[in-house]
Amino acid sequence: MPGDGFSKNDREFRMRPIGRVSSPFQDTSEIPKGLGAQHAAEGYLEILPELEAGLTDIDGFSHLIVLWVFDRSEGFTLVGTPPSDNRPHGVFATRSPRRPNAIGLTVVELLGREGPRLRVRGIDMLDGTPILDVKPYLSNVPPERLKRGWLAEAEERAGAGA
Amino acid sequence: MPGDGFSKNDREFRMRPIGRVSSPFQDTSEIPKGLGAQHAAEGYLEILPELEAGLTDIDGFSHLIVLWVFDRSEGFTLVGTPPSDNRPHGVFATRSPRRPNAIGLTVVELLGREGPRLRVRGIDMLDGTPILDVKPYLSNVPPERLKRGWLAEAEERAGAGA
Repeated sequence: MPGDGFSKNDREFRMRPIGRVSSPFQDTSEIPKGLGAQHAAEGYLEILPELEAGLTDIDGFSHLIVLWVFDRSEGFTLVGTPPSDNRPHGVFATRSPRRPNAIGLTVVELLGREGPRLRVRGIDMLDGTPILDVKPYLSNVPPERLKRGWLAEAEERAGAGA
Repeated sequence: MPGDGFSKNDREFRMRPIGRVSSPFQDTSEIPKGLGAQHAAEGYLEILPELEAGLTDIDGFSHLIVLWVFDRSEGFTLVGTPPSDNRPHGVFATRSPRRPNAIGLTVVELLGREGPRLRVRGIDMLDGTPILDVKPYLSNVPPERLKRGWLAEAEERAGAGA
């Protein structure tokens, strides 16, 4: 059975939320998905007040990487069809919530900070989503070397059909 | 005490390794760090064989985001001085291993795949590091809008002193 060995995996790591997302989205149906989806929603990363010192100097970065938990998703599927294509792909080649470890990643633009609250643009998480980590976005992949696999192909097919 | 409320945090999420990193680095002292560090080391992401189907179509992507555990780091420091600067910064404004949730993130270049083994360039993890997730790298931040905070300032000071 797929994932059986994985589930019996002896080593386990425990993660605790460092805060919550304050988002305009109450339900996944409200979140833009699929090809060309724009993530322009604004919201807050509400970091726990006792961790506020960890945000020192974060204000100088324009973009942050937010790691969070798909806490309203259960189980995982190794192969599935994402909203951006009509063909199935491996879970590690997609951003599907149904992953072996349900960790989401979003790059947001930092608009401002009010103590332990970070005002950001680019929210695609549900309201109340637990945040595991925030990291500065430091560098891009050289654009001439970036290949986007099935996603580029799906975009091409969508364009050809338009 | 900083982190006290965080540690008593009621909600907890359990993560299990989906595989291990095979790296040339046995000790953190061997890993290039600080300003201008090049991460050109090659290695393997050894994904659990029972999760191999999750890698379907990953071959088309040039770059992957790897989430992993700093499993040889303990505890966290909210403010610390990174190897790339001589001034202290908040942990969420750095890539420090001593984070509330010890999750590391590395962008690697995918060189090839042999079943559940991904050959990659850009390894900066220790040999045996547990992998939590692999995601496709999909897009860059528009370069004209990317600001790199204290890191850009540290680079400037280093350049001015050279």
